[in-house]
Amino acid sequence: MPKFKQLGYDKVWTEPVTFPKWERRSEHAQVLGKYTQPLVLTALGGSPGGTVEGDVVRFADFDALKAAPDGSLAGKIAFVDYHMKRARDGDDYANGSDIRVAGPSVAIHKGAAAFLMRSAGTDSSRAPHTGITHFEKGVAPIPAAALAMPDADQLTRLLALGATRVRVALDCGWNGEYTSQNVIGEITGSAKPDEIVLIGGHLDSWDPGTGAIDDAAGVGISMAAAALVKPLHPRRTIRVVAFANEEQGLYGGRAYMDAHAKDVAKHVIAAESDFGAGRIYGFDSSARDSEKVALAQIALALAPLGVESLPGQGDPESDIGAMTTRGMAWAWLGHDGSNYFDLHHNAEDTLDKIDPKALAQNVAAYAVFVYLAAQADGGFGSAPKAADAAAR
Amino acid sequence: MPKFKQLGYDKVWTEPVTFPKWERRSEHAQVLGKYTQPLVLTALGGSPGGTVEGDVVRFADFDALKAAPDGSLAGKIAFVDYHMKRARDGDDYANGSDIRVAGPSVAIHKGAAAFLMRSAGTDSSRAPHTGITHFEKGVAPIPAAALAMPDADQLTRLLALGATRVRVALDCGWNGEYTSQNVIGEITGSAKPDEIVLIGGHLDSWDPGTGAIDDAAGVGISMAAAALVKPLHPRRTIRVVAFANEEQGLYGGRAYMDAHAKDVAKHVIAAESDFGAGRIYGFDSSARDSEKVALAQIALALAPLGVESLPGQGDPESDIGAMTTRGMAWAWLGHDGSNYFDLHHNAEDTLDKIDPKALAQNVAAYAVFVYLAAQADGGFGSAPKAADAAAR
Repeated sequence: MPKFKQLGYDKVWTEPVTFPKWERRSEHAQVLGKYTQPLVLTALGGSPGGTVEGDVVRFADFDALKAAPDGSLAGKIAFVDYHMKRARDGDDYANGSDIRVAGPSVAIHKGAAAFLMRSAGTDSSRAPHTGITHFEKGVAPIPAAALAMPDADQLTRLLALGATRVRVALDCGWNGEYTSQNVIGEITGSAKPDEIVLIGGHLDSWDPGTGAIDDAAGVGISMAAAALVKPLHPRRTIRVVAFANEEQGLYGGRAYMDAHAKDVAKHVIAAESDFGAGRIYGFDSSARDSEKVALAQIALALAPLGVESLPGQGDPESDIGAMTTRGMAWAWLGHDGSNYFDLHHNAEDTLDKIDPKALAQNVAAYAVFVYLAAQADGGFGSAPKAADAAAR
Repeated sequence: MPKFKQLGYDKVWTEPVTFPKWERRSEHAQVLGKYTQPLVLTALGGSPGGTVEGDVVRFADFDALKAAPDGSLAGKIAFVDYHMKRARDGDDYANGSDIRVAGPSVAIHKGAAAFLMRSAGTDSSRAPHTGITHFEKGVAPIPAAALAMPDADQLTRLLALGATRVRVALDCGWNGEYTSQNVIGEITGSAKPDEIVLIGGHLDSWDPGTGAIDDAAGVGISMAAAALVKPLHPRRTIRVVAFANEEQGLYGGRAYMDAHAKDVAKHVIAAESDFGAGRIYGFDSSARDSEKVALAQIALALAPLGVESLPGQGDPESDIGAMTTRGMAWAWLGHDGSNYFDLHHNAEDTLDKIDPKALAQNVAAYAVFVYLAAQADGGFGSAPKAADAAAR
């Protein structure tokens, strides 16, 4: 809040976000027997604690685990060794996060006593990648953790030599509730103060790193971009939201929706920066078919920054997703995520990994977007939609 | 030992090496106060345990710490933030290791309650670099640890904002003695079985990594190279030594010297691979002035492997150093160490970091050296020298 005020925002306030609290206390794993050695891993968010010893059964991908007969992993440790592929748009995270989120429950159905996965990442460091997992209703949760890449490799080599028994010891779990805050700053519109262009990022981060790329960058980019255009007296209000608790399940975005869904029509368009601080290379919007003129103006101004118009390639990012299910128009300013999954949800997410030149380009692109969206003659198609229970 | 036998070595035996045992149990650090956050560090080998809270005083290099007035650090935590430079020959490790080995004692003379250093490494990972430190006789040891690079950066940024108090909590220390073994394999010479060409590496490694580059690579290169030339029936005996406990202070090399110094003259020449598994680019020997013909033959055979003769640039590596002080001739086959200090003594020292093609070149270069040294008509100048007490 002091930083918003220091940057000259006209209004600054907070809105509460309450969520269950998951804590990591300690995490260890060890190969047992002849080749005894430690394995570096990190508990998945939402994992229960517990110590499990069992023979490891490796699956090359999620489909292979799904194909295992029910009960076939009784007393075993399931290990999904999927190698996530590097890509500018990070699209293979769909597979990596699917294994992380849904893998443990599938393993439970097969009888597994614990779940291990090769980290959902693209690096080769000893810094394993955490992230939230969800247990299906009705299953008894099991310890679930992600191995660092070299440790997944080592475990695979040991399994090639013969049966390999591992001890996984996690001390972690849910522990009460916490109330955090969405922190919101506004630059009041000079002509249409009731119409809002929303940008933002999220405040929370996973504990092994410092959260520089996920998502201090997004918060900083948004705050700086709006502050840059304030002297131009934008016609619409620019609202920057630093969302609380994105990581455990979009709590901040959902709390924002609960508080503001009635005002969807006033949210002219929104964009969130939650994919690191690589150069922004692409632009898209839900209004691509209805508001071609206004979007073309934005695209024209983004082009000198190296940003290409890529209709159909974007999505609303993380926290603004909830409001888009209620009819809010969105824009996408796509960061180059080639290196994002080297640093995502692991200890390597630190400030030195951000390229200041790329960060400056990010701020410039957001400043262009937010200013031209605030000045546009028409809207971008935001209109209330009924709540869809399934979207929750 | 089974691997030596499997590779067809003619004799395999062990020789005991006894040393004090240092154990790492846990290590934590935390910035206190307004900007509280964890710092990733690792205790230096030989550090005592203990919990210290104090204001941090930063020094840009070792000279700056040395220049601080005696007593000026009373109750403080000394922090030497020297940035080690990357180099093919790794020569800036002289500075990095000097800070690590001698820094804590200098800090004690200034009154410091604990010692922190930026890791002696060239990476930007969260994997801090450990390594042995030595406390001068008569000083009371203080907790001593190395920060990961991003954590040293962060601490430096916090110090720029104002006084920064840190808690360092190490649980580690000396705990009894252990007896390990130098493991030795020989291919008996066909013509001069009493004359020995010695190559080797060391068996031990620091605990955060797996020791793939430091120094499983050296042991593997040596064992493979000698096994490769066995079918050629080399004239001299080739002895491969996998030394115990190099890391705590060359214990294996000194034990070897204690057992074999009387036979220095029989050790025709020795080389050790203890600088990773980067391509070997340079060749040198203590016999460069006396045995030009024999060395030129070796250099000629090494040239097609990309190895250059670099008189005056080499040194005897680690464990063979003790025997060279007693008059043993040495050769140097210099690995490209450009990336070595990204991986040295930290968690990133894992097998995936070794390039199989470079490793194959290493084995080829050692095979050439060991074979031609075994076949050479003359010796390489080994001759007994009196023990030099200072060298111990």
